[in-house]
Amino acid sequence: MIIIGEKINGAIPSVAKAIAEKDEAWIKDLAIRQTAGRADFIDVCSSVVEGDVEVLHWLIDLVQSVSDARICIDSPNAHSIVEAIPFCNKPGLINSVSLEGDKIDTVFPVIADTDWECVALLCDNNKIPDGVDDRIEIFEKIVEKVREYNIDLSRMHFDPLVFSVGTKPDAFTNFAAVARYIKEKYPMAHVTSGLSNISYGIPARKTLNQAFLVLAMQAGMDSAIIDPTSREMLGAIYSTEVLLEIDEYCMEYIGAYQDDLFGVQKKK
Amino acid sequence: MIIIGEKINGAIPSVAKAIAEKDEAWIKDLAIRQTAGRADFIDVCSSVVEGDVEVLHWLIDLVQSVSDARICIDSPNAHSIVEAIPFCNKPGLINSVSLEGDKIDTVFPVIADTDWECVALLCDNNKIPDGVDDRIEIFEKIVEKVREYNIDLSRMHFDPLVFSVGTKPDAFTNFAAVARYIKEKYPMAHVTSGLSNISYGIPARKTLNQAFLVLAMQAGMDSAIIDPTSREMLGAIYSTEVLLEIDEYCMEYIGAYQDDLFGVQKKK
Repeated sequence: MIIIGEKINGAIPSVAKAIAEKDEAWIKDLAIRQTAGRADFIDVCSSVVEGDVEVLHWLIDLVQSVSDARICIDSPNAHSIVEAIPFCNKPGLINSVSLEGDKIDTVFPVIADTDWECVALLCDNNKIPDGVDDRIEIFEKIVEKVREYNIDLSRMHFDPLVFSVGTKPDAFTNFAAVARYIKEKYPMAHVTSGLSNISYGIPARKTLNQAFLVLAMQAGMDSAIIDPTSREMLGAIYSTEVLLEIDEYCMEYIGAYQDDLFGVQKKK
Repeated sequence: MIIIGEKINGAIPSVAKAIAEKDEAWIKDLAIRQTAGRADFIDVCSSVVEGDVEVLHWLIDLVQSVSDARICIDSPNAHSIVEAIPFCNKPGLINSVSLEGDKIDTVFPVIADTDWECVALLCDNNKIPDGVDDRIEIFEKIVEKVREYNIDLSRMHFDPLVFSVGTKPDAFTNFAAVARYIKEKYPMAHVTSGLSNISYGIPARKTLNQAFLVLAMQAGMDSAIIDPTSREMLGAIYSTEVLLEIDEYCMEYIGAYQDDLFGVQKKK
């Protein structure tokens, strides 16, 4: 499972405050704790429109000063993302492109001959599709672009998008159908998700998110944008990898347990 | 999901002590708390060889004095089970028969023309099978006996048996294959499990059990022998029912949350 740590995001009020106050210690602490939670990538998102690139630069420098995890550059503005790439000391992950506007044609030429990876959301200019066929159609169009730029599919993380089960009862079912389609047709491609939207508007959101994670992994999701400081989420990931025979004989599970990443907390 | 509350079992030291000391309040409290956790059946198991029926009688009377849940009579001795049936004030669940010895021919004639339900373990005299085909073979033999006694399959809970993933990495995979076979061939039949064996010998057992529950429900398990006082297990059940579209628009989920059965605890 590829873990993308979601906590350094200016849309979170405490992070917005740390960005506004230039609180370096706060950001570094978030990076350190997510790295301890085995984040493969640490997402950095400014959530500001003016000065997006400057804030990304500041965040990336801080994360890299305390963590060896790869950077996930997160911005709704594809041009900001491209400008932030040189701040990273090794190839990371782009979050994200889609068929919306010129995102793909802005990002793909820059990462084509690199080891950068990229999240692609299955949506376009028209709408955010919530069915199976409409998402697969967009997926296949993005695959065409991926091939056009000669990007290996193993560098792509496709996010089928997650809707709230509060308004769409088939939110998981449709997500799973798209995930299975992608993994069956292109086993090298990753399926990812910023999964917490599944529980939007519903109480006890973490409980529902955790069950979604387990079921989505069964459907082929092998990458996720989550909080790696959550013992419950890490426990769900390591358990599911054991049960799905990804982690045979529980070697990773036991190692993570010994490192006190889930279960009853040993250290304080 | 049919919940069979597992906590009144003499194999648990605190329960053995309560049985030895005739501690009525302790047993009643276990029955009340499991009923609050939405147990459909409350399992009673003496775990004594001498006086099994007397202890079952005492336990059943205590449970029925405080709970409307149906009784699940649990004993390795099929004759004890049959003797305990008249103590129950309404039809309950037998736990369990298998192809071992004369269990089926002891229990099935007694419950044939009743509303009693029955757990059947997929094992016989020879061995406890851990593959898919060997369990399906036993399952089909039990189905023949079920038909012979004209018992409706909707009254049967088939337990494919769960092995520890610590010694058998395919423990979940094989369980799921058997569960899918049963539900595809006979959708009316229930698939159940005393699932905690999945984590035998492994740390943070509850974490692994919870993920197993979610994945097993996806494979068709619709009955389980669990601890209904566990907020984590109930949260996993209600979440999974939402995600699998069993609980459309989260009606059951929200009701159970409002009754403080899972999520961050409201009452103390």
